[in-house]
Amino acid sequence: MPKSSQYAQKLAESASVDELSTQPLPNSTKIYIEGSRPGVKVAMREVSLSPTHLQDGSLEENQPVRIYDTSGPYTDPAIDIDVRQGLAPMRGTWIEERADSVELDRFTSDYTRLRDANITLENLRFEHVRKPRRALPGNNVTQLHYARQGIITPEMEYIAIRENLALSEAAMEEASRDQHPGQNFGANTPKFITPEFVRSEVAAGRAVIPANINHPESEPMIIGRNFLVKINANIGNSAVTSSIEEEVEKMVWSTRWGGDTVMDLSTGDNIHETREWIVRNSPVPIGTVPIYQALEKVNGVAEDLTWEIFRDTLIEQAEQGVDYFTIHAGVLLRYVPMTAKRVTGIVSRGGSIMAKWCLAHHEENFLYTHFEDICEIMKAYDVTFSLGDGLRPGCVADANDEAQFSELRTLGELTKIAWEHDVQVFIEGPGHVPMHMVKENMDEQLKHCHEAPFYTLGPLVTDISPGYDHFASGIGAAMIGWYGCAMLCYVTPKEHLGLPNRDDVKEGIITYKIAAHAADLAKGHPASQIRDNALSKARFEFRWEDQFNLSLDPDRAREFHDETLPKESAKVAHFCSMCGPKFCSMKITQEVRDYAAKQEAEKGMEEMSEKFRSEGSEIYHEV
Amino acid sequence: MPKSSQYAQKLAESASVDELSTQPLPNSTKIYIEGSRPGVKVAMREVSLSPTHLQDGSLEENQPVRIYDTSGPYTDPAIDIDVRQGLAPMRGTWIEERADSVELDRFTSDYTRLRDANITLENLRFEHVRKPRRALPGNNVTQLHYARQGIITPEMEYIAIRENLALSEAAMEEASRDQHPGQNFGANTPKFITPEFVRSEVAAGRAVIPANINHPESEPMIIGRNFLVKINANIGNSAVTSSIEEEVEKMVWSTRWGGDTVMDLSTGDNIHETREWIVRNSPVPIGTVPIYQALEKVNGVAEDLTWEIFRDTLIEQAEQGVDYFTIHAGVLLRYVPMTAKRVTGIVSRGGSIMAKWCLAHHEENFLYTHFEDICEIMKAYDVTFSLGDGLRPGCVADANDEAQFSELRTLGELTKIAWEHDVQVFIEGPGHVPMHMVKENMDEQLKHCHEAPFYTLGPLVTDISPGYDHFASGIGAAMIGWYGCAMLCYVTPKEHLGLPNRDDVKEGIITYKIAAHAADLAKGHPASQIRDNALSKARFEFRWEDQFNLSLDPDRAREFHDETLPKESAKVAHFCSMCGPKFCSMKITQEVRDYAAKQEAEKGMEEMSEKFRSEGSEIYHEV
Repeated sequence: MPKSSQYAQKLAESASVDELSTQPLPNSTKIYIEGSRPGVKVAMREVSLSPTHLQDGSLEENQPVRIYDTSGPYTDPAIDIDVRQGLAPMRGTWIEERADSVELDRFTSDYTRLRDANITLENLRFEHVRKPRRALPGNNVTQLHYARQGIITPEMEYIAIRENLALSEAAMEEASRDQHPGQNFGANTPKFITPEFVRSEVAAGRAVIPANINHPESEPMIIGRNFLVKINANIGNSAVTSSIEEEVEKMVWSTRWGGDTVMDLSTGDNIHETREWIVRNSPVPIGTVPIYQALEKVNGVAEDLTWEIFRDTLIEQAEQGVDYFTIHAGVLLRYVPMTAKRVTGIVSRGGSIMAKWCLAHHEENFLYTHFEDICEIMKAYDVTFSLGDGLRPGCVADANDEAQFSELRTLGELTKIAWEHDVQVFIEGPGHVPMHMVKENMDEQLKHCHEAPFYTLGPLVTDISPGYDHFASGIGAAMIGWYGCAMLCYVTPKEHLGLPNRDDVKEGIITYKIAAHAADLAKGHPASQIRDNALSKARFEFRWEDQFNLSLDPDRAREFHDETLPKESAKVAHFCSMCGPKFCSMKITQEVRDYAAKQEAEKGMEEMSEKFRSEGSEIYHEV
Repeated sequence: MPKSSQYAQKLAESASVDELSTQPLPNSTKIYIEGSRPGVKVAMREVSLSPTHLQDGSLEENQPVRIYDTSGPYTDPAIDIDVRQGLAPMRGTWIEERADSVELDRFTSDYTRLRDANITLENLRFEHVRKPRRALPGNNVTQLHYARQGIITPEMEYIAIRENLALSEAAMEEASRDQHPGQNFGANTPKFITPEFVRSEVAAGRAVIPANINHPESEPMIIGRNFLVKINANIGNSAVTSSIEEEVEKMVWSTRWGGDTVMDLSTGDNIHETREWIVRNSPVPIGTVPIYQALEKVNGVAEDLTWEIFRDTLIEQAEQGVDYFTIHAGVLLRYVPMTAKRVTGIVSRGGSIMAKWCLAHHEENFLYTHFEDICEIMKAYDVTFSLGDGLRPGCVADANDEAQFSELRTLGELTKIAWEHDVQVFIEGPGHVPMHMVKENMDEQLKHCHEAPFYTLGPLVTDISPGYDHFASGIGAAMIGWYGCAMLCYVTPKEHLGLPNRDDVKEGIITYKIAAHAADLAKGHPASQIRDNALSKARFEFRWEDQFNLSLDPDRAREFHDETLPKESAKVAHFCSMCGPKFCSMKITQEVRDYAAKQEAEKGMEEMSEKFRSEGSEIYHEV
C-alpha cells in the first residue's frame, strides 16, 4: 500500500485501539490502593475465585489473588479509552509540585520544529501534543537525584505499594512462610518493600525508575535486583512493514499481557510521529535507541553521523517523553578489531553503526567522548541510561569473549560518570550464551558495573532454533533473572526471521513472564508463590475456571481445555481429558487423603482406647 | 463417532501414514555408515549447504552437517513405507545370532490369547504380528548382562557410531576445539565414543540401551549421562478421544522431529491392539506404564488389582516388544501419608493407583514385594526398568519434600536389586520444581540411585503457565539436562488442559530438543556445537536457505521468514525484515571486517615503510 493512501484519513480522527485489548481479563477487577498522599492510587488486578466444596458439603471461601498489573487504564471498564486523546497525565501534579522544571513554549529540537512545520504530515500527527517540560537551569529532575537527597517521591511510594501487590506487611510475611526460601546470590530483598527501601535502592544505583517528566502518563515502576524481575517488549515499524496504528496497538497489547516497559525500535518512516502516538498512550515507560533515528537523518550513512545530529535527536525524544535511551557509548575504537575473528561479528545494530563510524573517522566513539554532555541532557528530563552492549555475542561461539567483556568494563566506567551527574543507569547484556556461561555474565556485570541493574536480551542458549528463539532465549532469561538480572528483554518467535505480529508479541511476552516469574520464585521473592499456590489448589480441586483465570494467559488455557472437552459441564467435572472420567489421579488422591484422615482418626481412637484400657477401662473416673 | 463405525473397514487394509511425515527434511540426505560387521548400518541425516561467496567473487565450500536422526526409515525416500506391514526387523539377525532366546509358538499372556480369539477386533488388528521371542531357560538377554560379560553387541557399536555423528576421531577432536569447554558436574564423556566405552557405561549401570528382543525394528540408542541428552514424547489415546491411526501417526510424527523414545500412555479401549501397531512401526524404543492397562482389566477399581493380573500384563507387553516399563515400585505404604498435607497430593497416575491399593489392603505395594519376580520377566525379554516417581510433586509448593525423596531412596535400593539380576534401570524424576531446587534433585538422584540414568518430566519451574507448560517445564528440563539428567520427558502446550494434537506434539518435541541441545552445549558434549556454528555462519553470510535447513524446524523457520518477505529474491537478499535493506547490522559488520582487514594491511604497510625508513630509505640495499 503506498504511503499516501495509508493515511488518507486523519489518524487523529480515526485511530482506535482494538476492543480485544480493552476487555478486562476474566473474573478480574481493577482495584486502586491509595497511598499516603492524594493522587497515589496504585492500580492492581484482583482475580476472584470460587469457593472450595468441602467433603461435608459446605463451602470454604478462597481469597482473591492480586496480580501486578501493567495494563494501565486499558483494562478498567470505568475509563473511556480514546487513543486520539492519550492517557491522563497521572504524574503531572507530582512533577509540577516539585517546582524544579518548567513548561517550555516550544520544542527545543530543530528536527521537531521541522516536522511540526511539515503540513504533509497532518494526517498522521497526534493532535494533543503536550508542551515539553525541562529542568530549570541548574536543576536535576532525576529520581536518583531526589533519592540521594533523601526525598521519597510519590513515584517511590507508588512502587513500594505496587511491588508488595498492595498487601499488608503481615500478609507479606505470611505469604513468605508459605513458599520456599530462595537462593538469591547476595541480593537483599526485604520481606516487605517500604517507600524508604525503594529510595535507598535508587540512591545506591541498584535500581532505576524510568520516569521522564514528559511522560506523566506512565505508572511508576522500578527495575532492580531486589524487586520483581521485569520484562521489556520491543515494537517498532521498519522500512519494510507496519503502520503507526499497528505499533500503538502492539504497545497496548504488550502491556495487557505483562510488558513492564516497551521499546520503540522503529527504523522506518515517520518515526517521530509514531513515537508521539506511542508515548501519549503508554502506561509503561518507553525506551528507544536514538542512534537509529539519527542514522535515518543522515540517510543511513553511518559515517555522516555527528554529535550535533545525535544531540538534537536526544532532545527531540526526551521532550516527547522517552523514559530511557539505549546508548552504545562502550563501543570503543580499540575494541572493534576484537570482533573481526568472530563467527558473527557485531550483531547489535547500534554497535555496528558506532563501530563503522569509529573506523571511518579513525576517532573515538562520539557517544563516549560526549558522554558527559549526554548526562546533561538526561538529567534535564530524567531520561535513564540503558548502556547498550554493542559488542554482544550474536552466536554461542562468540559468547563471553574479549570484545564483549572489554565493552562491559567500559560500561562500568560510564556508570560511575553518570552517577556523578545523578543520572540513572542500567546496563544491557547479551545475546547468545550457552547455559554454563550465563552466570559469568551476571557476575562480571555486578562486579564491573557496581551493581547497576542488568537488562539482558535472552540470552539464547543455542543458535539452532529459528522460529522458537523466544524459548531458546527464555531459558537463558530465566536463569540470569534468578542470578540477579533485573529486566529481561523479550524475544519473539520471529527473532532472526521477520517482524513480529500481534500473536508473536503475545507469545514472546508470556514466555518472558514465565521466565521472570520463575526467577522471582527461585530468588525467593516475597509473596511470589501466592499465585502458584492458588492456581495449584484450584487445579487440585477441579476449579477449572479459577485455574484458567489465574493463568498468565486465561484465554489460551480456556481455549485449550475446550478443544478437547468443549462442554460447559466439563468445566465443573472432576476429571480432565488426559485421563478421562473413570481414571483420574487427582480424584484418587482425594480418596487417599480421605483414607489417610480416617486412618489418623482411627489411630486417635486406638490411642484413646489404649489410654482407656491402661487406665483400667473405667468409664467414669473417680474425681 | 460410535466405536463400531470407527473401524468399519479393516485397518490392516486401510491404514497409512500421512505423507507429511514421510517427506525427507529439506536439503537432507539419509546416509548410512557401516560398522565393523555386516548389518550395522547407522542411519544419519546430512544437510548440504551452499557455498560462501567470498569478497573476491570466488566460492568457498561449506561442509555438510550431520544430524543425529531419530526418524528411521520414514524419511528415506528409497524405502517404501507401509504401516500395515511394519518396519523391517533390523536387529533380528543380531538377536538370533546370540542364540540365547527362542521364538515361542504362541503368546504366553492369557490376556493376549483372549484378545487374539476375539473376532470383534478383526477390523482393528495389525495383521503381521510376529511370534514372540523369550530368553531360553536360565538365560538373560539384557544388554547389561552382555556388557558385564565384556561382550560388545552390535547395538553398542551402532550407538557409538551414532553418538559420534559418524565422524572420525580426528573430526570429533577438531570439533571439540571449535567449541566452549563445558561444565559437566563430574560427568565423564570422552571426546570420541568407542563401542567399548558404550559397553563399559552400560556395564556400570550409568547408561541403558532399551532394546526388547521383541522390538527388532528399533534403531539402537542409549540413555546415559555421558551421551547426548535424549527426549521422550508421550502419545496415547484416552477414554475420551483419539484413534489407533492417530496414535501411530503421532509416533511417526514424534520421531520425525526428534523424539528419541516414545511412551504409549493409552488408557482407553483397544490398548493392546493400538500398542501392536505402534511397536511394529516404531524405529525408536517404546515405553509404557503397564499399571494403566492392568487397571483397565479390573474396570478401573484400583483395589481389585492383583499381582497375577499385573504379571500377565507385563508379559503381554514384553512379548509385544515394549522396551521399557514404568514401574511405581517405590510408592511404599509408609510414604503415602506423607502426601496428605501437600497442596496437590499425589499427581502421578501410577502413584495414586498404587497408593490407593496400599491403603485399601493395608499391605505393602505389590510391585515392591514382587520386585524380583518382575526382574525375572524383564531379563527374559530385555525390558528396561523406568522406576516411576509415583510421589513426584505436582506443584512448586510440594517440590523436594519428604514423600518425594523417601521414594527416591527406595528407587535406589530397587536399582541395586535390578542390577543383581543384570536388568537395566533408569529412574524417573519430577515434576514441578522451582529453578533453585532443581539441582538438588539431580544430586540426590546420583547419590541415592548410584548413577543410574535419570529421566525427568520437565520439571516445571512455575505453576502459573497453563497453555505454555511446554516452556515452563523446558526451562527446568534444560537445567537438569545440564546437571546430568540423561533423558527429558517432553511436556506439550496442552499439559494440564487436554490431549495434545499433532501440532502440540511437535511444539513439545522442538521445545525439548532445544532443552536437550542446550544441555549438551553446556556440558561441553563433544561436537555438539558444530550445528550452532554452521547455522550462525550461514546467518552471518545471509545464506537464508542454509539457515532454515540447519534449524530444528526448517518448515517453521522458512514459513516465518516468508510471512514478512515472501519473495524468493529475499532469500538471497543481504538483509532481513527486522532492519530492512538500508540498515542491517550484519551488513555493516561485514564492512567493519573489511575495514579492519584493510587497517591490518595498512598497519603491515606502515610497518614495512617504517622499516624502510629506519633502514635509510634506500630502495636497493647493498648486498
